[in-house]
Amino acid sequence: MSVAARSGRDHAKLRGVAQVIEVTDPSDPRLDDFRDLSSADRRPDRPGGRGLVIAEGVVVVQRLLASRYPVRGLLGVRRRIEALGPELDRLDVPAYVATAEVMAETVGFHLNRGVLAAADRATPPDVAELAAKARVLAVLEGVGDHENLGSIFRNAAALGVDGVLLGPGCSDPLYRRSVRVSMGHVLAVPFAPLEPWPDGLKWLRDSGFRVLALTPAAGSVPLSEAVRPGERVAVLLGSEGPGLTEEAIAAADAAVRIPMAGGVDSLNVATAGAVAFYALGGGDDGGAARQG
Amino acid sequence: MSVAARSGRDHAKLRGVAQVIEVTDPSDPRLDDFRDLSSADRRPDRPGGRGLVIAEGVVVVQRLLASRYPVRGLLGVRRRIEALGPELDRLDVPAYVATAEVMAETVGFHLNRGVLAAADRATPPDVAELAAKARVLAVLEGVGDHENLGSIFRNAAALGVDGVLLGPGCSDPLYRRSVRVSMGHVLAVPFAPLEPWPDGLKWLRDSGFRVLALTPAAGSVPLSEAVRPGERVAVLLGSEGPGLTEEAIAAADAAVRIPMAGGVDSLNVATAGAVAFYALGGGDDGGAARQG
Repeated sequence: MSVAARSGRDHAKLRGVAQVIEVTDPSDPRLDDFRDLSSADRRPDRPGGRGLVIAEGVVVVQRLLASRYPVRGLLGVRRRIEALGPELDRLDVPAYVATAEVMAETVGFHLNRGVLAAADRATPPDVAELAAKARVLAVLEGVGDHENLGSIFRNAAALGVDGVLLGPGCSDPLYRRSVRVSMGHVLAVPFAPLEPWPDGLKWLRDSGFRVLALTPAAGSVPLSEAVRPGERVAVLLGSEGPGLTEEAIAAADAAVRIPMAGGVDSLNVATAGAVAFYALGGGDDGGAARQG
Repeated sequence: MSVAARSGRDHAKLRGVAQVIEVTDPSDPRLDDFRDLSSADRRPDRPGGRGLVIAEGVVVVQRLLASRYPVRGLLGVRRRIEALGPELDRLDVPAYVATAEVMAETVGFHLNRGVLAAADRATPPDVAELAAKARVLAVLEGVGDHENLGSIFRNAAALGVDGVLLGPGCSDPLYRRSVRVSMGHVLAVPFAPLEPWPDGLKWLRDSGFRVLALTPAAGSVPLSEAVRPGERVAVLLGSEGPGLTEEAIAAADAAVRIPMAGGVDSLNVATAGAVAFYALGGGDDGGAARQG
């Protein structure tokens, strides 16, 4: 194993970060957090855990650094590590600098984005505390596709959803692909499991939320008729194929739909969620500049 | 080359389709329309054209069969060809039946969806005729990502957009991945180039459309303030990175934005489009059953 230790040049170029370490051997065990990222079954994950949180690319890594997840380390080509900016200065973890080739051999594929960060998981927030602070919630049932899940978090963050509750059958929002597709927003929007199911929905209603099940099923009312400005609302979204279960729809206050043109079965679940978040969020961004 | 000709068994199982042909040799030149689909540079495309229209999977193939594009032929495993149903009976083109292995060797990768159809391109509709019949249009500038483009067409179809006009820098909506991501709706929603640029936007305004540029730029008004029920409107969408050009924004009647929560730069362009289509489409699906 040949590993170059920190050098004066690293210190100078990286504005005082003490732990920049150049690595030239892809088998260096200090890179194990980043090893074989594409093969979940070979990942050296934490004992009893569901794997590390991995962020890819400058923007998402910055969001990880700003999140509540305890960062363990970074790995990147010099240019990308430098692009992280002042966030790096506050870090007390190693930042491994390597060539693109060494990175590719370590992680198992070529990384366009050139920088990675790894963090430990953190205890999910208490669902009652999360709900108490929220006006708009998304509640997911059976959303198993990691890209849809990531997109839902990105849309939730953009459109002012205060938290996401996970019913049965949902994938892990902190899976690497979800984190990437969410643009890192899954690291900021709080989420927690909602249990038991579907009784948790009754609890949400008792807690002051109107629970609206988004479904094209017969009997649903157009979304625009369901909006009551300012009310606390939880939007229930199901998986793209089968949609929400009957039990979930029955446990909601109302079934609502996005009016669809004839012949088109449905929108992607993340897109449908975005339309609902927009419609129910009140459509006001406050402070932004307005034009007559 | 060993090719089994049509057999009585095919006729019986496939309800009278005359041209079901079993193929066992992946190098059979009759399969050339489906050869090397993943390598655009090796595709045997039409002289002077931009390639064939390729549909993948039962649902998208059915949409191709129902479209205005002249179908040339199909290739699929027996089960998927049979799943196409009565649409096949009306076809006067060959339907090649092969094993999954022969299909994979022909197209260059394993096809989960098990059936393909190829069609010729067709002349785009006249932009003036398209606009004359439309109430809501989407106008795209610089949307180069095939998946975003496909998603925009899927959302346009679902949310009642009558046509899509393509400004400069847009990818080919009929590229295979766009067709797939659009769920085949790109084969139904009419589209045409809008030229010259940005003067075509002025022509649209003169034709009775209010042109709204969707942009988070300063000076934009919230979408909800821009809606005027029933008016003819063209929504201008830019690429996800740089967004709309200043010339395009200047040529629009107004700049509108989707209110965003603090710190979140933007939605995916297809998602932003969906929100705008929903907000501007009037939110009414007519005939559907209503509750309450």
